[in-house]
Amino acid sequence: MENCIFCKIVNGEISCVKIWEDKNTFAFLDVNPINPGHLLVIPKKHSRTFYEEDEKDFISVMKTVKKMAEKINKNLKPKKVGLLIVGWDVDHTHVHVVPMNDYYDLTSKRYLEGKKQSLNVTELNKIAQKIRGKR
Amino acid sequence: MENCIFCKIVNGEISCVKIWEDKNTFAFLDVNPINPGHLLVIPKKHSRTFYEEDEKDFISVMKTVKKMAEKINKNLKPKKVGLLIVGWDVDHTHVHVVPMNDYYDLTSKRYLEGKKQSLNVTELNKIAQKIRGKR
Repeated sequence: MENCIFCKIVNGEISCVKIWEDKNTFAFLDVNPINPGHLLVIPKKHSRTFYEEDEKDFISVMKTVKKMAEKINKNLKPKKVGLLIVGWDVDHTHVHVVPMNDYYDLTSKRYLEGKKQSLNVTELNKIAQKIRGKR
Repeated sequence: MENCIFCKIVNGEISCVKIWEDKNTFAFLDVNPINPGHLLVIPKKHSRTFYEEDEKDFISVMKTVKKMAEKINKNLKPKKVGLLIVGWDVDHTHVHVVPMNDYYDLTSKRYLEGKKQSLNVTELNKIAQKIRGKR
């Protein structure tokens, strides 16, 4: 897609440090990493979010994500490898694969602020019905 | 696995509000959600991390993750749906699927503290070689 920074990276119009490329997916290092080795896996085909993407394309991305996490685990030896999809900033599906050494390397502002909610069973069942939707 | 809280949830020994179950995967609401509707998708078969899990099992989990994100998006209408795998607390692979309304609903402590690192090309290439490992 025109003016998409990640489409431009795939097409070579913007340079990157590439870690992996196959028919449908592309992985490159985040230049502002949470920790060194933090990389992004994207589908070559532009899609806005992983839940609007074709399942086939999403699965291709996730297979590459797993390969990258295995490589990071084996070769960088962090305490854990984490995954994150957020997507506020770039409108092209991307998965952060992050070598983690600190408990809060991936988290929520709510966790840090102690603002986790505690729902009772009635509230949980109400939200569950909403999620399941009409049958 | 004995004494695994998520294995016990799958086996019905610990109660939960279940959203989805199929042959290989299970999804239930997080009782301390980042936002209401925050749920966890797990493989029924105990595995410690997604990168040590069989690819087949990981893909089953990710297909359920996508289904759940589609339902959350359609029926709860958050601004975005995000994904998170961290795994410090429970030693059974689990994916957080989170309806998001705030930019920092999923983030890193480093982002919040403005401690993102900025690596130059030499540093990036050095870490890239390490990740790629021996050929």
